[in-house]
Amino acid sequence: MQEKGNIIVLGGDGFCGWPTSLRLSNDGYNVTIVDNLSRRKIDVELGCQSLTPIETIEHRLAAWKEVSGKTINFRNLDLANDYFELRELIAELKPQTIVHFGEQRAAPYSMKTPKHKRYTVNNNINGTHNVLCAIVDAGVDVHLVHLGTMGVYGYGTAGMTIPEGYLNVKVDVRGTDQNLEVLYPPHPGSIYHMTKTLDAMLFYYYNKNDGVRITDLHQGVVWGTNTEETLMHPALINRFDYEGDYGTVLNRFLVEAAVGHPLTVYGTGGQTRAFIHLRDSVCCLELAITNPPAAGERVKIFNQVTETHRVRELADLVSRLTGAEVRYYINPRNESAENELLVRNDQFLALGLNPITLNEGLLSEVIDVAAKYRDRCNLEKIITNSRWRSDIPLDREGATAPGVRQLV
Amino acid sequence: MQEKGNIIVLGGDGFCGWPTSLRLSNDGYNVTIVDNLSRRKIDVELGCQSLTPIETIEHRLAAWKEVSGKTINFRNLDLANDYFELRELIAELKPQTIVHFGEQRAAPYSMKTPKHKRYTVNNNINGTHNVLCAIVDAGVDVHLVHLGTMGVYGYGTAGMTIPEGYLNVKVDVRGTDQNLEVLYPPHPGSIYHMTKTLDAMLFYYYNKNDGVRITDLHQGVVWGTNTEETLMHPALINRFDYEGDYGTVLNRFLVEAAVGHPLTVYGTGGQTRAFIHLRDSVCCLELAITNPPAAGERVKIFNQVTETHRVRELADLVSRLTGAEVRYYINPRNESAENELLVRNDQFLALGLNPITLNEGLLSEVIDVAAKYRDRCNLEKIITNSRWRSDIPLDREGATAPGVRQLV
Repeated sequence: MQEKGNIIVLGGDGFCGWPTSLRLSNDGYNVTIVDNLSRRKIDVELGCQSLTPIETIEHRLAAWKEVSGKTINFRNLDLANDYFELRELIAELKPQTIVHFGEQRAAPYSMKTPKHKRYTVNNNINGTHNVLCAIVDAGVDVHLVHLGTMGVYGYGTAGMTIPEGYLNVKVDVRGTDQNLEVLYPPHPGSIYHMTKTLDAMLFYYYNKNDGVRITDLHQGVVWGTNTEETLMHPALINRFDYEGDYGTVLNRFLVEAAVGHPLTVYGTGGQTRAFIHLRDSVCCLELAITNPPAAGERVKIFNQVTETHRVRELADLVSRLTGAEVRYYINPRNESAENELLVRNDQFLALGLNPITLNEGLLSEVIDVAAKYRDRCNLEKIITNSRWRSDIPLDREGATAPGVRQLV
Repeated sequence: MQEKGNIIVLGGDGFCGWPTSLRLSNDGYNVTIVDNLSRRKIDVELGCQSLTPIETIEHRLAAWKEVSGKTINFRNLDLANDYFELRELIAELKPQTIVHFGEQRAAPYSMKTPKHKRYTVNNNINGTHNVLCAIVDAGVDVHLVHLGTMGVYGYGTAGMTIPEGYLNVKVDVRGTDQNLEVLYPPHPGSIYHMTKTLDAMLFYYYNKNDGVRITDLHQGVVWGTNTEETLMHPALINRFDYEGDYGTVLNRFLVEAAVGHPLTVYGTGGQTRAFIHLRDSVCCLELAITNPPAAGERVKIFNQVTETHRVRELADLVSRLTGAEVRYYINPRNESAENELLVRNDQFLALGLNPITLNEGLLSEVIDVAAKYRDRCNLEKIITNSRWRSDIPLDREGATAPGVRQLV
């Protein structure tokens, strides 16, 4: 396969970053992973680990070399602090693309304590700003592809279909309606989501002032765990989070079912979320990289989602498949109990994305992985200790019907 | 006068913070200034100083005690780094109001080098986030009054009158126009202005999630130098910036006229800016403090401006008054050459603000101050070395007509 040029993957050791790095290497790009291994260190802090037994980054890269013959390079850098090393790396590699997964990405983790709030803001904002500043400083024409989140839009948009990043509005100018296109007004649901809305403003500014070419991907909740490449060798196995902070809703239900824990529905489960399978997430990254914005083009924004579901309906589905009990816990989040969610994803469909939607075969695949590693599960870590406000009670018991615990 | 409760003034040693602190102390509040003296240290970095001979903070406070009999307390804290000290101070004083001037506030300084960009982002965002996080962490019901800038709106709004923070728009929901009120879409003109748009999103989030009561003041360019209180004793004299980074346009022209330097108009001078006299700025702060948002109320946003003027018209006015030569320099900013600016300021007028508008008497007062201290002026520092992009040429010569230097 032809050499396709240099790509830096920031956060390339993580849940989405690792399978993306393998795919890009497989595609013929010369991939360099930049990661400070912060996600592994947070596992240490939280006293838990990936359900799957992930290897060290060195073993991962050696296994990839063995099965593919390809080299992925690795640099341990902290984006928020190691500015000069980052700038030198960009100046040296002159990458055509930098993929930016390098942020703290769990909403519950960002809400645990003032320390976690402050870490998330400092790490994500200084990290993203350093990347943008270093691209301009190094004078390299890079396409920056950033992983954002659907959560920047907020939920509960009163029947409106969420567009892809930009909203057409009419404003009154001297008595006449004029059409304007604006960045979709952000309504972040946590400190983590707030940092992504700040990122969006950093992108807007650096694109406008310095002409940096940027694609921002507003991703839904990712489910699944394996891709073609992670299945090529046992040492390439991907991270799989199930605990209360990093375990996202559908994957968490599937692990809970496999280990015999009740399915943890928060609040009424009436929250509608957007979803995407990990394989489609990797596919979207490839499409974003091969379809960069032109010089002078504004920030490209894609919604990286394939379907939407209500949380309690997913719980019922997993319960039907597995016989697991559904339990309702007091919602630690400060959010509407019920919401609709209508989302456009036309742009990736037009580029050829063929969505993998929720089906029993793929759910079973995840349940099989979960069952295989069930002995590694720490049951004490399934219920989150995070709360959005200090006046929200912790609930480690749950109840068999929604709303019951709230009335206590 | 009756004791009115505790107020913390963050950045209370600065150009606006100092006269505000004196006024609030005079009004009967128990004022504590928090400042890390960063503005004085930046003077050292830039190799220049306030045109007026400002005293140390200790001498300032001793002079205030002498003339007023009132004590202003002082704590040297760095908002971006001294989180725990800040939280303890809030928990101890339980202030009714925190006034937040504590940010790097010069657009040209924020654009000088990557180091200055990164400092401005880190300092302003971590500082503002620490203040919000500490208020929630300390569990004190504080009204936070923040100094923002008109620059978050951007310029060139195509005939639209800029509202106060929130914009009414119509959006298409399933074929029917629905009315929405959104935060005015930000369009920041520099890294500094960008940090103020990020601040606005921090305020939006902490108000929504934690119910923090916040007023954000979008201030125009401040001119003038003295207030009633700063005139009460020579050691209370206020800072007066004239150099290329911190000297804002009208004050800079008045100093240039006093020291015999050509008036430095950048570009065509067709930029329209919003202005407010320092005395009105202090008056607006008092009005904001005495009219806080109620519990549960969204972020209050005021435009703190009294009039708008085109830069070249101000230059012509100062030239007529003083005989100074007007010179046109290549604009270091990346902005439209000409813009209109229509701004609402109804809220402060309704609260009783009686605007001081540009008049020859007040201009002469500033010229007199500038003339008195003209020997302290470093002529080498009047032209900025900052540029918004590395491809914008530096221009230390200027020309007698706009546009001439750009054609070279």
